[in-house]
Amino acid sequence: MRERAVVREVGLRDGLQSLKEMMPTEAKIGWLEAEYAAGVREIEVSSFVPPRLLPQLADAESVVRYAQGLKGLNLSVLIPNLKGAERGFALGVSAMNFVLSVSDGHNRANVRRSTEESVEELRHVVARCRAQPPDRRPRVACVLATAFGCAIEGEVPEDRVRRIALEAAEAGAGEIVLADTVGYGNPAAVKRLFRRVMADVAPVPVCAHFHDTRGLGLANVLAALDAGARAFDASLCGLGGCPYAPAATGNIVTEDLVFMLEAMGFETGIDLERLLEVRKILAANLPGVPLMGAVAKAGIPKNFPARRSARAAA
Amino acid sequence: MRERAVVREVGLRDGLQSLKEMMPTEAKIGWLEAEYAAGVREIEVSSFVPPRLLPQLADAESVVRYAQGLKGLNLSVLIPNLKGAERGFALGVSAMNFVLSVSDGHNRANVRRSTEESVEELRHVVARCRAQPPDRRPRVACVLATAFGCAIEGEVPEDRVRRIALEAAEAGAGEIVLADTVGYGNPAAVKRLFRRVMADVAPVPVCAHFHDTRGLGLANVLAALDAGARAFDASLCGLGGCPYAPAATGNIVTEDLVFMLEAMGFETGIDLERLLEVRKILAANLPGVPLMGAVAKAGIPKNFPARRSARAAA
Repeated sequence: MRERAVVREVGLRDGLQSLKEMMPTEAKIGWLEAEYAAGVREIEVSSFVPPRLLPQLADAESVVRYAQGLKGLNLSVLIPNLKGAERGFALGVSAMNFVLSVSDGHNRANVRRSTEESVEELRHVVARCRAQPPDRRPRVACVLATAFGCAIEGEVPEDRVRRIALEAAEAGAGEIVLADTVGYGNPAAVKRLFRRVMADVAPVPVCAHFHDTRGLGLANVLAALDAGARAFDASLCGLGGCPYAPAATGNIVTEDLVFMLEAMGFETGIDLERLLEVRKILAANLPGVPLMGAVAKAGIPKNFPARRSARAAA
Repeated sequence: MRERAVVREVGLRDGLQSLKEMMPTEAKIGWLEAEYAAGVREIEVSSFVPPRLLPQLADAESVVRYAQGLKGLNLSVLIPNLKGAERGFALGVSAMNFVLSVSDGHNRANVRRSTEESVEELRHVVARCRAQPPDRRPRVACVLATAFGCAIEGEVPEDRVRRIALEAAEAGAGEIVLADTVGYGNPAAVKRLFRRVMADVAPVPVCAHFHDTRGLGLANVLAALDAGARAFDASLCGLGGCPYAPAATGNIVTEDLVFMLEAMGFETGIDLERLLEVRKILAANLPGVPLMGAVAKAGIPKNFPARRSARAAA
């Protein structure tokens, strides 16, 4: 029996929202379907933010409706506030990821509120969730952006992250996501913070959202694994980053994450060869956008477990 | 007091030997000097292989002679056999890295010998070293290539790696380097093998040589750190890889490794900002060669320890 590790695809939200290119709804649906067929069962499919702010995700409702038809898919949608949550209630989505920044400066830049005001907003969201009929009551995760540092404020004190995480859990978040939004994290900080926050908010699970901005994405995953985390956000082709800094990378690469976890002996439920095929959809629909991914370039090695068992079975 | 971690630059050997481009001796010396000035004190400066096989390193003697003039620099040279060692004795080099492949197929492809024959050759090299006058007696490390898998043979059994490592240590190697030559390693395998080999060959130190072929290079460093390793090979700009596969990456990137170690609280003795400046020498002298490196692209973050202390001092 291999231990499970969960990979959550966030490219359809975090990846696309950072691009100036628009992906047609049909292509998003093709991407969603292909990842589902490869075995991915956790996908953040879009974001309920005002379409004038993120025109790339203006088709959120259509994408959500399609995803709701995929059996066994745990879809979620990002929300920045109660207004976003209302769109989720209207569609009957089963999970929403409420995002706030631990750094006050970053939160104000993002949603024009202090972090404390966002925590208060989370309380309203949870209260409204609880007012829904039981069969339409979504789970709410709380994503703590800039948990490892902030491009505006620099260091973000660990005690502040722990306090906000605890407040979010006490507010009723069913999951805490520690997000290294700008790639300021390092494995020592990751291991320490995950251990502490996990102890603080238990039994609420703590998940990891890492960017590969400074090349430490997968090392940070390893540190979070060591601390006991078992769920990780990632983006196909490492899509994301900043449209104005072509060389900056976005989220950690889903394919490379799956490769690392499976090579280490974890079970992700994802077929890596099929997942690599999904890259073609992005290549065809996002011409000119750099697609990251080391395994896609170098190929799956001969000692990869799935290859070994295929040879053993032959 | 921060704990020390040693970064050894191998780009002048492993990086350059994989390129079809030739770097002029003057540029190599400029590179060497600039890294030395940035605080790098361990550099593998070249390889004593026949110049007809590696014309890129035909100037080994000139580069070694220059490096020998840099006070406090621990320079080393790769050798594949006794003939290479003789070139080292002639120059009075203080350290040589004898390389053999744990995979028999890879060793035969590389040096037309079985692995066992290479271990026997190592014994001759050590015997010849011991016959040198005490002040000209070089240290000999043994690099175990394909220690985590082989592109020819696939899996390389852990027991075989342990046996060869022990034979090399018993032969008199003063250091064992476990090398993931083709990027087949993963953090679970790295941690397990380092722990075991370190226990087997103690007190002989065990160092790590990782390639970033499949994106796991720095995660593998973290796993080796966890096992207790404190010395790591890396290549400026991640130079290396295969000249016939433009997208394949080479060694882990020195700059990113230094960033990770320092961010985690280790002391490398290397000034990251100055190290990043050295990239310009490679950019100027290797036009068209892709230069890797996440920190170089994204910049040093505001929460980096050296930046914090600079601000505190201001």
